[in-house]
Amino acid sequence: MVRIGVLGCGRIGRVHADSVAVLRGAELARVYDPVEASAREVGERYRAAWTTDVDDVLADESLDGIVVASPTPTHVELLTRAVRAGKAVLCEKPIDLDIGRVDACRTQLGDLTDRVMVGFNRRFDPSFADIRERVAAGEVGALEQLVIISRDPAPPPPAYVATSGGLFRDMMIHDLDMARFFLGDVVAVTALGSNLISREIAQAGDIDGAVVTLRGAGGQLATITNSRRCAFGYDQRLEAFGASGMLIAGNQHPTSVRYSGAERTDAAPPIFEFFLDRYTPAYRAEMAAFVAMIETGTKHSPGFDDGRAALVLADAADRSLRTGTTISLG
Amino acid sequence: MVRIGVLGCGRIGRVHADSVAVLRGAELARVYDPVEASAREVGERYRAAWTTDVDDVLADESLDGIVVASPTPTHVELLTRAVRAGKAVLCEKPIDLDIGRVDACRTQLGDLTDRVMVGFNRRFDPSFADIRERVAAGEVGALEQLVIISRDPAPPPPAYVATSGGLFRDMMIHDLDMARFFLGDVVAVTALGSNLISREIAQAGDIDGAVVTLRGAGGQLATITNSRRCAFGYDQRLEAFGASGMLIAGNQHPTSVRYSGAERTDAAPPIFEFFLDRYTPAYRAEMAAFVAMIETGTKHSPGFDDGRAALVLADAADRSLRTGTTISLG
Amino acid sequence: MVRIGVLGCGRIGRVHADSVAVLRGAELARVYDPVEASAREVGERYRAAWTTDVDDVLADESLDGIVVASPTPTHVELLTRAVRAGKAVLCEKPIDLDIGRVDACRTQLGDLTDRVMVGFNRRFDPSFADIRERVAAGEVGALEQLVIISRDPAPPPPAYVATSGGLFRDMMIHDLDMARFFLGDVVAVTALGSNLISREIAQAGDIDGAVVTLRGAGGQLATITNSRRCAFGYDQRLEAFGASGMLIAGNQHPTSVRYSGAERTDAAPPIFEFFLDRYTPAYRAEMAAFVAMIETGTKHSPGFDDGRAALVLADAADRSLRTGTTISLG
Amino acid sequence: MVRIGVLGCGRIGRVHADSVAVLRGAELARVYDPVEASAREVGERYRAAWTTDVDDVLADESLDGIVVASPTPTHVELLTRAVRAGKAVLCEKPIDLDIGRVDACRTQLGDLTDRVMVGFNRRFDPSFADIRERVAAGEVGALEQLVIISRDPAPPPPAYVATSGGLFRDMMIHDLDMARFFLGDVVAVTALGSNLISREIAQAGDIDGAVVTLRGAGGQLATITNSRRCAFGYDQRLEAFGASGMLIAGNQHPTSVRYSGAERTDAAPPIFEFFLDRYTPAYRAEMAAFVAMIETGTKHSPGFDDGRAALVLADAADRSLRTGTTISLG
Repeated sequence: MVRIGVLGCGRIGRVHADSVAVLRGAELARVYDPVEASAREVGERYRAAWTTDVDDVLADESLDGIVVASPTPTHVELLTRAVRAGKAVLCEKPIDLDIGRVDACRTQLGDLTDRVMVGFNRRFDPSFADIRERVAAGEVGALEQLVIISRDPAPPPPAYVATSGGLFRDMMIHDLDMARFFLGDVVAVTALGSNLISREIAQAGDIDGAVVTLRGAGGQLATITNSRRCAFGYDQRLEAFGASGMLIAGNQHPTSVRYSGAERTDAAPPIFEFFLDRYTPAYRAEMAAFVAMIETGTKHSPGFDDGRAALVLADAADRSLRTGTTISLG
Repeated sequence: MVRIGVLGCGRIGRVHADSVAVLRGAELARVYDPVEASAREVGERYRAAWTTDVDDVLADESLDGIVVASPTPTHVELLTRAVRAGKAVLCEKPIDLDIGRVDACRTQLGDLTDRVMVGFNRRFDPSFADIRERVAAGEVGALEQLVIISRDPAPPPPAYVATSGGLFRDMMIHDLDMARFFLGDVVAVTALGSNLISREIAQAGDIDGAVVTLRGAGGQLATITNSRRCAFGYDQRLEAFGASGMLIAGNQHPTSVRYSGAERTDAAPPIFEFFLDRYTPAYRAEMAAFVAMIETGTKHSPGFDDGRAALVLADAADRSLRTGTTISLG
Repeated sequence: MVRIGVLGCGRIGRVHADSVAVLRGAELARVYDPVEASAREVGERYRAAWTTDVDDVLADESLDGIVVASPTPTHVELLTRAVRAGKAVLCEKPIDLDIGRVDACRTQLGDLTDRVMVGFNRRFDPSFADIRERVAAGEVGALEQLVIISRDPAPPPPAYVATSGGLFRDMMIHDLDMARFFLGDVVAVTALGSNLISREIAQAGDIDGAVVTLRGAGGQLATITNSRRCAFGYDQRLEAFGASGMLIAGNQHPTSVRYSGAERTDAAPPIFEFFLDRYTPAYRAEMAAFVAMIETGTKHSPGFDDGRAALVLADAADRSLRTGTTISLG
Repeated sequence: MVRIGVLGCGRIGRVHADSVAVLRGAELARVYDPVEASAREVGERYRAAWTTDVDDVLADESLDGIVVASPTPTHVELLTRAVRAGKAVLCEKPIDLDIGRVDACRTQLGDLTDRVMVGFNRRFDPSFADIRERVAAGEVGALEQLVIISRDPAPPPPAYVATSGGLFRDMMIHDLDMARFFLGDVVAVTALGSNLISREIAQAGDIDGAVVTLRGAGGQLATITNSRRCAFGYDQRLEAFGASGMLIAGNQHPTSVRYSGAERTDAAPPIFEFFLDRYTPAYRAEMAAFVAMIETGTKHSPGFDDGRAALVLADAADRSLRTGTTISLG
């Protein structure tokens, strides 16, 4: 039985606690949150020890793995301490908003970063993972073009935007990782942004829509289209086009019901509202992979360097947006 | 150039005239209708000779084929005269509402019935024809179950219903022929009817909805579901289920546009309103087949005996409805 | 916390144990199976007390509800004892294969049958339940036609068929209940059967394909198409057609991936293999409803009389098949 | 009856001749091609006068409109002569590959350019036109993002590529016009290209894949993804995303048949092979619009300036590709 501790009992911490709870072979042993009510609620729900002192978790020698689901500014410190305490770590994205801090952390930890898995949960989405495997198996021939469309249902609160690191580092980082998941190394980044949705976001100096184009080392082209608002829910699609075919992951509906009437036919219900519904299976599979890596002792994937690489792309997108030029990498 | 004459310039006669006009290798030479305005309008539109005297057409030695698109009670007489005048005939369904008259006609004409094609246009629908070919090619293995759903957008006028021969002979006869197209000989017929739509139809002694179940000689089962009203248009679907797979022909839309919004996603536009739109390609292909048969001298298909067999099934359905028993055939 | 005991730790018993385990507010307290290995395995997996003596469960005063998931011939006795012991009961379908025994049980239990819920899990399938609610809310106008297609991936073992009660009581009973779920009382039943798949099933005197047509008290028509074999998985579809529209529940796929290549486009992956995958959400929702009914003390639904009514329809289908006539009910 | 002459009897000239032939209210009066066999074949097929001397057509006073479907280098001269001869002109795209020649032509013709329609047939595609109308009607709220995917089935012959003007001017020009159709004025263009398909195209100095991003004057973002090869046919899709919803035009199939088997389900047939099949309805509607504009005397649309504007965008894309910067316009 793999024993897991969770640092942070907010929205995403609870997702991970839930994933551990339903996973055979894993046990939620300890949870931490500085807010006592949060720590207690999650602890009691899952019959796990709870604490408001993070050291209680880091010092627990019985734990095999630790999930870092605390606020972003605390990620580097907590993952460093956890890894040094001999734990495997699943760290929520991003590792940090500042590439300098990420690089410093990398230098300090050296090979210990092999014990860090970064929470790019979408790699574990059954549809995206299926396409990735089939592309790797040659089902569409050599990959030539990748189209990612990713839209949130509604913009976050202005206060969140201010500290989020901006659309590229906060939202698109998932899509940038997805592009790397398919393309491998990226050699060029071009970004365009727009402010069509939220005056508050514009005032905070951020954009609320964007298109980023990437070129892979193999010459492939990828586009990522983001929007902070989508009237019909959490729009998450991907299209992998290759020399001999194409695989598309469409949106998903809670039922398979279709309506036909005088005004329209075959109408599907709304898609999932947001990531907790859309990506529940992905979070479950991510936790299962984390636990399996602990059991087998293999290097974690997506790892620390994947977390770093996505941030490098987000930074490049930011630079491209500000300069109106394509940014070359590597 | 195959020269065609059309008898009857009503709705369906115009469809056939149109099909001849756009067909390379065929020429609309003469049209007849007892109503001068109708005959003239169609004749002038297609630059064909027009007449209100049917003998003008039947006596025209330059004609190769004649389309009988006049009212049902005149079919037997006109097809008989046309065939005896040496013409190939495309006769609209049904040959007649009375199986006795059909059988008498068959006896009189003997082998001349080989020159008669019956207007079961749906056999030429690109989707249904594709499924028929693929089933014949073994793509779904041995055929086991057939599901036909066929609904009209709105009930016909009461006056029409009174002389129509009833739902089975007027409307379902197309689906009964489609069942024979897939199953071959039918050995048992069971029918249920309903009156949920139109008081006038009930008062005329007819039903406005029905389910008929057929058993083919090979033991296959088929269901036909009919309704005289369908809020979302002309609902025309078919499902062929076999030992190793299934082929479905779904409804068709005038565009490939799909709408997503807060209330629904992927909503398609309404389907085609009625048979003139839905089956235009079928009517075109039917006329092309008729002309090709004239050119090659092959026996016409679907032929006179197919027209007769569908009527036999409609009569059996009627008997099943009245007796509450399965009717065995053959 | 509602405490549940499970009688029978075979395939379906484990499904229910699993549903209790993941349900907040319920606790799997005790499980029974005459085979020690089965009882122990399920008990240990869920940390529940386990036993090979059914009396241990029935005598446990702390239990609120009991799930009867034992072999069909034991259902009547166990549900009777459980209800008399003051428990709410979720009894797997069918209550019994013999309507005489069912009626005798009903007479004996009287109002106690209100404490019995029958395991027609499909009523809780999110797609079917959604259609049922929307039909009730008038979204398609008055319901006129219902089309149910239900095909198993592969025929059961011959030994199972011999004691199954036949296709109507074993397999179609779910669809007959679904028809009642939509139509309410059924007044006429007509059945056709086929033997196209399995020589063993034919030798056992059963059919392996069937079409049953039902008429509701309101004049609506329903068709149920069953097959014991389906090459592409567990084919489970439903179409509710009404005066102003239609709702269809299509098959469901494990991912939203679609493939396009030179031979085909938009190809979806195979559908779910069988009921444990397809109906997992339905089993979960069924258990949640059972627990909620225990908590609120409301009459259970679908109840004992629903279980009886579906069996009456299966018997009528059997009689129709043997006599070639429509069977009138009520 | 509007009388039309066609200059050029190659592939696209025949498409237009066909469109005139089936259009009520128009008549194909004269056709020209320098190759006698081509001119004669088209003339005889449609019973039109044919000639190898272009002056025969330009001097025919009975003609109301002229279709310029000759090779691109002859467009400017022929459209100029035709307009000056008092004819309305439908000129195939592009007007010319050289913006200098286009501008000179514009200066020379002045208001006479109002009589020129440019052959951006996709504006008349029923699906794209439907989305355009619904966007204009506010069905998705303010337009925010446009996604155009446009892939040819196979690269053109190397000899064609050499004189084609390059992917942007030859192929993407249709998509650039489509972007203008939705966005209006474009203020910024960013282009990326790839050479993954054809060595010959690379040797000719051209690209065989591209992504272009556009910003509209209203701040909207659009992406165009092009490929010179697509294994599954002529991939032509468009997605208009707005503040309150989205409209997508998917690919189109020749039938509505879907196959399900052990390996896959719901598989559609291949899409249309190339533009003559995919856009036949668009060409028909384009010709109808041209004839209607002649009859009503209204200014032609898409007009000369639309042809010019699309070329300006293609030139900007070329410059962006070479410089790695975003090109600002207007």
